[in-house]
Amino acid sequence: MKKAEKDSKGLTVGKKEDFSTWFSEIVQKAELGDLRYNVKGFLVFQPWSVLCMEKMYKHFERVLQRKGHSPYFFPTLIPEENFTREAGHVEGFTPEVFWVTQGGETKFDEKLALRPTSETAFYQMFALWIRSYNDLPFKTYQRANVFRYETKATRPFLRSREFHWIETHCAFATENDAMKQVEEDMETTKEVLHDTFGLPFIFFERPRWDTFPGAKKTFAADVLNPDGKVVQQPSTHMIKQDFAKAFDIKFKDKDGKDKFVYTTCYGPAMSRIFASVVIMHGDDKGLRFPWEIAPRHVAIVPIDDSKELVEKAQELKEKIGEFAEVVVDLSKKSMGEKFNHWEMKGVPVRIDIGKKEVKEGKLSVFRRDLNKKEVIAEKELMKYLKKVKSESGENLRKEADRLFSDRIVNVSSVSEMKKAIDSGNIARCEFCSIELDGEKCAEVVEKEVGAKVRGTNLKKETVKGKCVVCGKKAGDVVYIARDY
Amino acid sequence: MKKAEKDSKGLTVGKKEDFSTWFSEIVQKAELGDLRYNVKGFLVFQPWSVLCMEKMYKHFERVLQRKGHSPYFFPTLIPEENFTREAGHVEGFTPEVFWVTQGGETKFDEKLALRPTSETAFYQMFALWIRSYNDLPFKTYQRANVFRYETKATRPFLRSREFHWIETHCAFATENDAMKQVEEDMETTKEVLHDTFGLPFIFFERPRWDTFPGAKKTFAADVLNPDGKVVQQPSTHMIKQDFAKAFDIKFKDKDGKDKFVYTTCYGPAMSRIFASVVIMHGDDKGLRFPWEIAPRHVAIVPIDDSKELVEKAQELKEKIGEFAEVVVDLSKKSMGEKFNHWEMKGVPVRIDIGKKEVKEGKLSVFRRDLNKKEVIAEKELMKYLKKVKSESGENLRKEADRLFSDRIVNVSSVSEMKKAIDSGNIARCEFCSIELDGEKCAEVVEKEVGAKVRGTNLKKETVKGKCVVCGKKAGDVVYIARDY
Repeated sequence: MKKAEKDSKGLTVGKKEDFSTWFSEIVQKAELGDLRYNVKGFLVFQPWSVLCMEKMYKHFERVLQRKGHSPYFFPTLIPEENFTREAGHVEGFTPEVFWVTQGGETKFDEKLALRPTSETAFYQMFALWIRSYNDLPFKTYQRANVFRYETKATRPFLRSREFHWIETHCAFATENDAMKQVEEDMETTKEVLHDTFGLPFIFFERPRWDTFPGAKKTFAADVLNPDGKVVQQPSTHMIKQDFAKAFDIKFKDKDGKDKFVYTTCYGPAMSRIFASVVIMHGDDKGLRFPWEIAPRHVAIVPIDDSKELVEKAQELKEKIGEFAEVVVDLSKKSMGEKFNHWEMKGVPVRIDIGKKEVKEGKLSVFRRDLNKKEVIAEKELMKYLKKVKSESGENLRKEADRLFSDRIVNVSSVSEMKKAIDSGNIARCEFCSIELDGEKCAEVVEKEVGAKVRGTNLKKETVKGKCVVCGKKAGDVVYIARDY
Repeated sequence: MKKAEKDSKGLTVGKKEDFSTWFSEIVQKAELGDLRYNVKGFLVFQPWSVLCMEKMYKHFERVLQRKGHSPYFFPTLIPEENFTREAGHVEGFTPEVFWVTQGGETKFDEKLALRPTSETAFYQMFALWIRSYNDLPFKTYQRANVFRYETKATRPFLRSREFHWIETHCAFATENDAMKQVEEDMETTKEVLHDTFGLPFIFFERPRWDTFPGAKKTFAADVLNPDGKVVQQPSTHMIKQDFAKAFDIKFKDKDGKDKFVYTTCYGPAMSRIFASVVIMHGDDKGLRFPWEIAPRHVAIVPIDDSKELVEKAQELKEKIGEFAEVVVDLSKKSMGEKFNHWEMKGVPVRIDIGKKEVKEGKLSVFRRDLNKKEVIAEKELMKYLKKVKSESGENLRKEADRLFSDRIVNVSSVSEMKKAIDSGNIARCEFCSIELDGEKCAEVVEKEVGAKVRGTNLKKETVKGKCVVCGKKAGDVVYIARDY
């Protein structure tokens, strides 16, 4: 590869050296999203991200349906009045709502919200659909795009004013059943995000001052980026019964009495999870993907445009087309550019076809998970691809797990905390409380360290010492990190 | 089945007797959509329609990708200024646009449109992406929901203020290439709508006064409903070059000159096609689906809730679960209600399990395409399902084709036209012209018959007589029908 090519086409900085530039570059050079659309904070998702996100949707939806969720499409517009029914929700979301006020020349009497989330749309229908204990649990989801007039700086995929997600909304007869759903949501997150997409995370119970507007308890998965900041991935919420009361969602229980349901919601954001996939698995050459969510699996590159090699490429494509999604690269670029291109794009396998190898019945293959090139017999190709399919996701996942596990550092003072976090870690320490009375200490952390209390681990941890901030008897072990 | 059950759960009218009531009832009783959402003209899509529409999307997207279209997700919001760049487009769409004017407390200087269609979003990016003839053809699509502040009466799935579609946007070096794309879009429609979904239609070139706003030529597929009205299904458009000029989409051609591209677009609306599937294949018992787009394929109904039968049902579900999507019905309803329920829902196959049959190694099966019940050996089940899978779509398609072909009636006067159309047919006649000078005669047809000139058949037809309206020499053979 020539130096000039690298400069124009490749990444100019390493992921670890300058994460922020690396991320901006990979979004642009791997053609994931275009930021030049003329509405601020809105992104054009390009084919390579859409193909991956579609696969991510498929995995999520398959698991949700298996666990008894039914799919809906709700309207994108929600009347203002729905928002005002639950006080916490209106307070939390109203500053972020885009409002539709006009249709054609007609000005509406009541503003309509572009949904920032759909509790208030689903719940009014729940009130019509749920009648008796026989209807419960009532488990739904929708694939949707949602809108938030963010005041924070937007970043492609990580935080946009429109994003693509799944939201589940469920109703239960008892608080216990609802809590089981929250646990199930966390298992779903592990099954999909970790086991399939290869993303390590910790699920935290968020401090009481940082719950979803209208929720009693919020649990959220934090993924750690190479710059030491965490990204909040799916969160699941035990909703306050105030919501069921505001929307009058009642059922006749076995004892003949009318009771309010308990509700939960869960919101994996596909565009943001995609960002974590890019960030976690990408390297200094470009993207890498677990096979299951790779936009395309195999790129075949004939090393010249002779009829013989082009036909061979098409023949191979047909042969493996049932098993893998294949692209044949017949573009006008140089070989070096093609190799760089497919490394940037992160196809799990590249096959280079040359005349000599074809004559000998061999193929030159490159696997992106290990960045390893080798020559195999052509008749071994299917076996080789199956091997890469079964190994590559695991390799990427293990690599990510290893990096993550080293990055949690125990601290016993605010200065130690700052040092650990400045070095790109998550700090773990004893803390007075994640109930509202701990908020003051959290403010100290925010002010002095510029970091946030992310919450407590779900696995209950032993507490024996004092709060690192106020020195009072500690009630919880918490994790502290910076976010975006 | 008891009479009372039929009245409460089943359809109370026949499709042919009272199509309008039949359609409203099937939407409600098969739980396809709920009209009680509190924004006018917006529908809640329930699981049974969503599951089918997801499969419809999959078929369309697979074909589009095979034909070289790449998927995008564009922002839902488009600035007002983009709309005003092409005169025909702004005039056609502005009366139907929902406007976002506010984010949080901030009132925007420029209104943002909820996309009614996305030419003006795609084209400004095309101008950035397309540089040379090497970039052409440039073929894109997106799966999206779009919004139109309809002034016509809305009907669930057929016409809503928000609907779910695919829109393709393509750019070409020559008008000839663009016209080939329009032909390809029509082939795609045949492959997906007719060959897979079983919907017969005729593709018309629309009269010049009825083209898409901003299009030079519009071609649209009309499907005929049992009430004799047609529904416009996918349309594909040769766009006026005014658009490429307005958005400055130029490429450097082989001859070194900068030229404007030619663009096309194509818009299959999944929610409306779903309506046609319901209408075309449904019967007086409820829905019927081609296997390929059935929300679920098989319902297993144990005839009592004994452990033996429930276990047998689960065993069968696992056995066929790789091949078909299976629901086991363990609800508390009566047998009659369960049978009716699954006929209403239109699963291609129902399996009833009774003790006697289990003992004998037999199964009682019901196939919905033929409404035929039979008893088969359990070991023949897979073979039976494969047979239904391969036959049922074809059976439904042939039935639909047969009905459709009888419904085109040649007429040679306006009174004959009225008679034919009043009897639920499409009238075929000679007509002065589908160019703008024919619009006056079309107005006469609209006024006297209450029907519209749908356009000319793509297969060029011989013209030898006079226009049925004005009596001048006819230029075209046109088809005339009522729509919604």
